[in-house]
Amino acid sequence: MTDQDRRARTVAWFTEVRDRLCAAFEALEDRAAGPGATERTPGRFVRTPWRRAAAPGEATAAPSADLGGGEMAILRGRVFEKVGVNLSVVHGRFDPAFRDQIPGAAASDGAFWAAGVSVVAHMCSPHVPATHMNTRHLATDHGWFGGGADLTPTFADPDAVAAFKGALKAACGAHDPAAYDRYAAWCDRYFYLPHRAEPRGAGGIFFDELTTANWEADFAFVRAVGQAFLEVFPAIVAARMDRPWTAAERAELLAKRGRYVEFNLLYDRGTVFGLKTGGNPEAVLMSLPPMVTWP
Amino acid sequence: MTDQDRRARTVAWFTEVRDRLCAAFEALEDRAAGPGATERTPGRFVRTPWRRAAAPGEATAAPSADLGGGEMAILRGRVFEKVGVNLSVVHGRFDPAFRDQIPGAAASDGAFWAAGVSVVAHMCSPHVPATHMNTRHLATDHGWFGGGADLTPTFADPDAVAAFKGALKAACGAHDPAAYDRYAAWCDRYFYLPHRAEPRGAGGIFFDELTTANWEADFAFVRAVGQAFLEVFPAIVAARMDRPWTAAERAELLAKRGRYVEFNLLYDRGTVFGLKTGGNPEAVLMSLPPMVTWP
Repeated sequence: MTDQDRRARTVAWFTEVRDRLCAAFEALEDRAAGPGATERTPGRFVRTPWRRAAAPGEATAAPSADLGGGEMAILRGRVFEKVGVNLSVVHGRFDPAFRDQIPGAAASDGAFWAAGVSVVAHMCSPHVPATHMNTRHLATDHGWFGGGADLTPTFADPDAVAAFKGALKAACGAHDPAAYDRYAAWCDRYFYLPHRAEPRGAGGIFFDELTTANWEADFAFVRAVGQAFLEVFPAIVAARMDRPWTAAERAELLAKRGRYVEFNLLYDRGTVFGLKTGGNPEAVLMSLPPMVTWP
Repeated sequence: MTDQDRRARTVAWFTEVRDRLCAAFEALEDRAAGPGATERTPGRFVRTPWRRAAAPGEATAAPSADLGGGEMAILRGRVFEKVGVNLSVVHGRFDPAFRDQIPGAAASDGAFWAAGVSVVAHMCSPHVPATHMNTRHLATDHGWFGGGADLTPTFADPDAVAAFKGALKAACGAHDPAAYDRYAAWCDRYFYLPHRAEPRGAGGIFFDELTTANWEADFAFVRAVGQAFLEVFPAIVAARMDRPWTAAERAELLAKRGRYVEFNLLYDRGTVFGLKTGGNPEAVLMSLPPMVTWP
């Protein structure tokens, strides 16, 4: 199988994940019966295609050269206050100043190809955890997968966290029995705010530069992560979305989101990567919550 | 005059600026007669002292070593939705990994002393510009001043911008006729969001590493900047704070604040400096708006 075939299969899977996520979330919007549900109609995703512009310092064949792009899908609803699902397939050449941060780019001419699907969901209810899931494939002089999924409850929710981690653990276990502990620890290290000495959320998994001798196995693992997320997160939402909440609980949610913003803009590599490679800022910053307070 | 005398005079001035700013803002809170004023009592500053903790990688004489600290003053009122005035006087040793970013720290043992006063005001009314002013003195193997002041209206406000810039231009002119143009251009370059291709606000001045052969003249300039801000900003607020506004205008204000957050967490050197030197995160991030949307 050629690199082209592999890339096509990866993009096809990421597209399927996007479509299934959007369908599952719209179905939850339809079923909502909790606070505020009667006053609002079910949310629907709005899709906006975007083309990547050349990054500062990026050499391109022509100003109008095709550098790839993607499609943002955003829903603002009565269960999902704001959820963005972004699919991107981009290519180009890393700015020399940025190459040494990317495996395989420093020694080459900086050429890269990248595809990914990501979702960030900020929920109306303080009793439904926010979540983030992303899987991606990046190629320079070699290729690898990366991604992860994590949960950010406002209030401790051991049942949701156990279900979420359990699903990811099962997905990891099919790939490599040691993977879950490694990736869970990586998630805890990564989603951490040193200036607050606080974790961003309650954990999950994080992995990067996954490239074993067996591409099929790596790809199967990435599919398993997406599959696990598709099964567990909508179930967590469904079980919690109709519980009533108080104004004080909602205020806690808005303040918790401040930490999310701090992490994403101060530390998140995906955000920095997106902004430095000329990613559409609306797509890159789609992860930011719809409303936030620093009380 | 010894370095100690200079430092003492600098701290005395920064303290005076803090006290005068707090008094001027509380007086505006008392006079408010605009939307929402009758339902709320005038805001008052709440002061919270803080001690600096050692930064990661910072060598100290003892875990309990005195590394300086400061005092945060925060008011949440009916004119000022959230205004923070922070006074800090800190010292210590820069982490080796951070020294090459600081003039005079790379070649020495990294020892530093720094003092500053800063104010960030986020206003209730979309018709009153947000503002930021800071002056600071930093010493490594030599000492210098830095600072600036800038205005962030939600809607174009040529009168406010002209008054603000006029006051700063006059302060600069007394110091060096060429200073204003240089510092205004520096402000425009500095408070800029490359990922949005947007300025953060409407400009002002920004300066750093100000150290001429004449310390008295440099200090006089820094005092003139503070003085100009104390005269012009409260007048801008007073002339606008009682105008009515609509919910749609208020929504614009909340979205404009999103850009403010993006700038401060992605690009602001003061924020990065504060967080990397173990500054109190509540004081460093006091600049973040009380409520923000990413619509």
